[in-house]
Amino acid sequence: MKTAVIIGLGLIGGSLGLELKKRLNYKILGIDNNAAHLQKAIELGIIDDEATYEAIATAELVIVAVPVNHIAAVVCKALDYVGENTLVMDVGSVKNSICKAVAAHPHRKHFVAAHPMAGTEHSGPEAAIYDLFDGKVMALCEIDDSGWQFYDRAIDIAKTLNMRVKIMHAENHDLHTAYVSHLSHVSSFMLGKTVLEIEKDESQIFDLASTGFASTVRLAKSDAHMWCPIFLENKTNVLKALDEYIKNLQEFRTMIADEQAEAIYKTIHDINYIRKILK
Amino acid sequence: MKTAVIIGLGLIGGSLGLELKKRLNYKILGIDNNAAHLQKAIELGIIDDEATYEAIATAELVIVAVPVNHIAAVVCKALDYVGENTLVMDVGSVKNSICKAVAAHPHRKHFVAAHPMAGTEHSGPEAAIYDLFDGKVMALCEIDDSGWQFYDRAIDIAKTLNMRVKIMHAENHDLHTAYVSHLSHVSSFMLGKTVLEIEKDESQIFDLASTGFASTVRLAKSDAHMWCPIFLENKTNVLKALDEYIKNLQEFRTMIADEQAEAIYKTIHDINYIRKILK
Repeated sequence: MKTAVIIGLGLIGGSLGLELKKRLNYKILGIDNNAAHLQKAIELGIIDDEATYEAIATAELVIVAVPVNHIAAVVCKALDYVGENTLVMDVGSVKNSICKAVAAHPHRKHFVAAHPMAGTEHSGPEAAIYDLFDGKVMALCEIDDSGWQFYDRAIDIAKTLNMRVKIMHAENHDLHTAYVSHLSHVSSFMLGKTVLEIEKDESQIFDLASTGFASTVRLAKSDAHMWCPIFLENKTNVLKALDEYIKNLQEFRTMIADEQAEAIYKTIHDINYIRKILK
Repeated sequence: MKTAVIIGLGLIGGSLGLELKKRLNYKILGIDNNAAHLQKAIELGIIDDEATYEAIATAELVIVAVPVNHIAAVVCKALDYVGENTLVMDVGSVKNSICKAVAAHPHRKHFVAAHPMAGTEHSGPEAAIYDLFDGKVMALCEIDDSGWQFYDRAIDIAKTLNMRVKIMHAENHDLHTAYVSHLSHVSSFMLGKTVLEIEKDESQIFDLASTGFASTVRLAKSDAHMWCPIFLENKTNVLKALDEYIKNLQEFRTMIADEQAEAIYKTIHDINYIRKILK
């Protein structure tokens, strides 16, 4: 039986554990600093047992699913233990800093820098679910630095999970995720903050929360341990996206203040183009 | 058979037509400046026939569901035609300017200022759906200016639609909707604009759009004809909410730029309180 070691048993690591067991019949071993998470992952059937890094030598696959500020160190440590056939993949939402930090490792070829573009606002092993990755995109970065037998296997895993594979340069990946994912989270966190500040009376928020607010603020429920490191690891791109967002908000504010109905109408009309792209 | 006249056959007017026919067995007559909308509403079974304002005299109920900048004038015109028993309700997302504009009308008591807090990002009669209002809040404003037999009937209608009724002062309503609804829309429109500007290549947006972006940007598909007037009619409150939102974004930007991990963590952690309010 093939063995996979999952390091970090949260939403993504846990969901991958469920899928690898179900779809590829892997034996799943888990490593997590948090003893309660390990225990919970065993109870939920996500992992078969806990492990130490020594188990990596005979494992076919290692998934590193810790917060992004710890990924590089954990990947390097895992690479120290790899056997001849061990593939190490991460699942981080930021890729460039990780690829750079791992570049010089003597076992670099065993590593595939990956980002399954899927998630929910929940966290921890209890948040793990089946079919999280179904139909979603698996971004694979800097694959020229990975041995082809290793990135081919990463592609196999993505395809078994019914994912679309996108090969990207890490810099390009980080720029685009800053816009389509990280900025969405900043926007939602700050919307939540602004509304919480005025709506001191909780029943008011609940009563007035039409479906619009609920969907826009959904990401504001996301975990600080996951998102604080993402914003810092992808700082340059996040600041660029955020500056453009603030500039657009300020321009729109001026249009409202000056009652420029035509400009507001045209702006919204142009943005509505998004209907054609995101059905 | 009781008759209801619906003026404005978009998402809200159309959905109310479907419900009033199904749940209260009303005969539904429609008025709309857009001939194609009238035709479509007949085809879709939303209205039984088109009408003119003269039909209001013998109607039990008039629903005014036009864009908010036209509501006051249309309500006043409808009030000119009311019979002894005719209730006129609007459904606008802004209430204060409408209540003020209607205050001096000799038939003011026939009018109930209402806001069913429900919707989708779609528009027009084709967007009308059943059960849109189920479980949602119906805000009723300045009911002291309405005759009790009229607001009692408005409550009856809301209850038949399985809505919760919230009695509010118009000013208070407009302040709170600026935060929980109108700000969400500005935030989402500008997120869509920012991402469209950088993601010139459409396939990039589609590929990288994890579920997070899709939900945060959903409201950016909303109709300009509806939202431009809302932002202008509720200008003071929208600017107040928007200024606080921009200030929060700028403060969070500084935290990222200065790599204040603890402050970012604490900020997100505090915002996560929203999990307890919005399940």
